[in-house]
Amino acid sequence: MAEVASDAAPTCHLAVVSGPTFAHEVAAGLPTAVTLACSEGESQWQRLAPAIARPAFRPYYSDDVTGAEIGGAVKNVLAIACGVVDGLRLGQDARAALIARGFAEMLRFGQALGAKAETLTGLSGLGDLVLTCSSTASRNFSLGKALGEGVSAAEAMSGRLSVAEGAHTAPILAKLASERAVEMPIVDTVCALLAGELPADEAVDILLARPLRAEMSG
Amino acid sequence: MAEVASDAAPTCHLAVVSGPTFAHEVAAGLPTAVTLACSEGESQWQRLAPAIARPAFRPYYSDDVTGAEIGGAVKNVLAIACGVVDGLRLGQDARAALIARGFAEMLRFGQALGAKAETLTGLSGLGDLVLTCSSTASRNFSLGKALGEGVSAAEAMSGRLSVAEGAHTAPILAKLASERAVEMPIVDTVCALLAGELPADEAVDILLARPLRAEMSG
Repeated sequence: MAEVASDAAPTCHLAVVSGPTFAHEVAAGLPTAVTLACSEGESQWQRLAPAIARPAFRPYYSDDVTGAEIGGAVKNVLAIACGVVDGLRLGQDARAALIARGFAEMLRFGQALGAKAETLTGLSGLGDLVLTCSSTASRNFSLGKALGEGVSAAEAMSGRLSVAEGAHTAPILAKLASERAVEMPIVDTVCALLAGELPADEAVDILLARPLRAEMSG
Repeated sequence: MAEVASDAAPTCHLAVVSGPTFAHEVAAGLPTAVTLACSEGESQWQRLAPAIARPAFRPYYSDDVTGAEIGGAVKNVLAIACGVVDGLRLGQDARAALIARGFAEMLRFGQALGAKAETLTGLSGLGDLVLTCSSTASRNFSLGKALGEGVSAAEAMSGRLSVAEGAHTAPILAKLASERAVEMPIVDTVCALLAGELPADEAVDILLARPLRAEMSG
């Protein structure tokens, strides 16, 4: 979005707000913390932060616009994968492992695109990932859950009134990752599921049957 | 534990299994992935991994015994904090933010003790943190929840038949962190709560009232 906005309005100063924010909780005044990533650095943040901060809504400074955007995009795809695991009733151990290994993919991909590790580890990366992947209310999660329950990809996609962003993001992520030789096996599996190339139970078999190897090696 | 075990049995080869594992899910044959950290390196892992691996139980190699142990210890304290947030009904945004900021504390502390970032980001660190902080069934989470609901620390601790490890770990962590000048504000707040020095609603006020500042700066 930042690239599109810069093209459309090249003289504007760009900032990105991202983080674990269910809108209904923000509206209810429940405490929420977000990343406010400023392309112009800290002086821009000092202007913007007091304007949007409330006692229960706390923007944290970052100068990493790319990192803030990547966290929000990748987490939608990983939430689909978590939904698949939930739809197949594979339990909470499997979901937690998937979140940790999905975060490793987010970190590898983000760093290849110039994002900072601390942004990806922060509110807009890990924080948003944890929220989206734990909530059955998320649109992406519920799409994955339908796939896990055996609904065909075509049917699961056509029957939705709301947009599951991750379904559109997944193939773009996979392409960008492949161009940079970044391994993203969970994202690749979500792509295959959405394309109808793989039923959900076989997708999980593939992820579980990978050879025993070191953590974080791919 | 590894230090105690080495003292007691100095000639033994030490390995640590840690990760997001609800015992009842492992027993039910649901898919589970763990870190198998080997003090003797990869040859030890090649001996041990096939002995404990099952199609649904997958040990991943690490040589970082310290990192595997720290993740498991710190997550119990953070689960108490997440329980407090739940007991106060502060919502899922707040919990996700707490997990992300708690993970930053785990990472800072672990690295100060020589743990590797990739272990803390892996199954035994982040994976276990996500599982424990999302489950109301966890003993540590339920202790925190009682505190959040207004039960006094003394009462919450005395009424338990099961052990909430994090209550014992918290003051030790705070001491080790302080000796190394590592900031752990969430752990410090849990210590104050458990010592009865602070009611839960004030603890949250303190965490929320911290000045606006950059992510990951402490």
